Amino acid sequence: MSSRNFPKTEILSGRHPVAEAMRAGRRRIHEIYVIRDQPEKRIETIAHEACRLNIPLTAVTREEIRKLSDTPHHQDIAARTSPCPLVDSGSLLKKYSRNPEDAFLLIIDSIEDPQNLGALVRTAVCTGVAGILIPRDRAAAPTPAVSRASAGALEHAPLCMITNLANFMKDLKKNHFWIIGLDQQGGDPLYDIDMTGLRALVIGGEHKGIRPLVKRHCDFLCHIPQTGAINSLNASVAGGIAMYEALRQRMQKMK
Amino acid sequence: MSSRNFPKTEILSGRHPVAEAMRAGRRRIHEIYVIRDQPEKRIETIAHEACRLNIPLTAVTREEIRKLSDTPHHQDIAARTSPCPLVDSGSLLKKYSRNPEDAFLLIIDSIEDPQNLGALVRTAVCTGVAGILIPRDRAAAPTPAVSRASAGALEHAPLCMITNLANFMKDLKKNHFWIIGLDQQGGDPLYDIDMTGLRALVIGGEHKGIRPLVKRHCDFLCHIPQTGAINSLNASVAGGIAMYEALRQRMQKMK
Repeated sequence: MSSRNFPKTEILSGRHPVAEAMRAGRRRIHEIYVIRDQPEKRIETIAHEACRLNIPLTAVTREEIRKLSDTPHHQDIAARTSPCPLVDSGSLLKKYSRNPEDAFLLIIDSIEDPQNLGALVRTAVCTGVAGILIPRDRAAAPTPAVSRASAGALEHAPLCMITNLANFMKDLKKNHFWIIGLDQQGGDPLYDIDMTGLRALVIGGEHKGIRPLVKRHCDFLCHIPQTGAINSLNASVAGGIAMYEALRQRMQKMK
Repeated sequence: MSSRNFPKTEILSGRHPVAEAMRAGRRRIHEIYVIRDQPEKRIETIAHEACRLNIPLTAVTREEIRKLSDTPHHQDIAARTSPCPLVDSGSLLKKYSRNPEDAFLLIIDSIEDPQNLGALVRTAVCTGVAGILIPRDRAAAPTPAVSRASAGALEHAPLCMITNLANFMKDLKKNHFWIIGLDQQGGDPLYDIDMTGLRALVIGGEHKGIRPLVKRHCDFLCHIPQTGAINSLNASVAGGIAMYEALRQRMQKMK
């Protein structure tokens, strides 16, 4: 069980991440570790599926799973897998430039909290977002903690890591995308923006929002209307509301 | 600083909860504790406001704040206050039965995680919800941890604790409210439901959703459409999407 034998692997833990990694079939799963004593019914179901897929299964103690996964939130199951699968941004652009009808991308500029990144990824997958783009050096990375916070949705997410976000945004425009920045200080109310067609939505960090250079590359800015004594939404809730407004408009258009 | 001298008090901690409690003016604030060594600028601003309001201020060590607040997330500030202010459900109903134009209530059936309760309260306050109703024995209580998770929004929230939720729902109907249950297994898509007028939205717990008895008292059920590989939204994100759909429809109607 020494990690030295598996240089480019990571330890996923939690029932949803492990089950969804198997279901998605995108990571190589080297080994699954389950609790030895009285596993829950749901753990047994996952173990059964692992056997069916010929994945080696090892029964260990709870303490061993805690040490391997480096978290108390492992839910008695962990897996040694290849890193989080990524999509190449070039092929993503190519795909939608050939089929320019309709695509919605999510750009997550500088979210730092893995819980928020996980919740955003979960909503993005639920709304069928075509690509999730994250700057390589300016945001939480897609770690096993993010997979856990996404309830395993990360295992299905079309995720791209971008080295130069400003350049990528220029490429998006060349490929006929309109870029919408969610910015509580600016622009029109979310509900007045047309979010159908080729669109990319930019969500900024928890504290400072979208970085100025990234904001300059947005075609529109919009804000979520607020009417109460407090004027700040949780970052993952705000992103969820904007992604669902896009889905609502797209469903409306198809009617 | 012994809590024995303050029988019905609690320790709020974090910059937003303490600042918003002062701004809302609903709790009695007996004393504020700030860090002695090199307080941040934002702590100084809050301390200044406390002086203006004649609230006793005590400079203590970080360790003392941690012990008092029982959390590492105290952000170098805490306050001893009266309990979370509540609204009486009877007077809430009376208010809206006299003015039956428009009111939107949120019923949180059995949310267990204080983080989720806090995020729901935050969005409810941002959308100007007229009342937030929580069953007394079936959900996370409005503790200081919830105020922290709500970024202080709890300090402004019109919160009612309900002993018998089924009876309260009957009273709502007598007062011309329609009750909408958010249930991923049932009903129409959220976007097909009229959420203007007198409405109460019921949100269920993280694991089992709305309890069967409570569900039976709903007039409609609705679900949030999902199109991806994963079919489960985070509870606080789902609630936020539904509350914002109600706000969107209400804004549309006023145009």
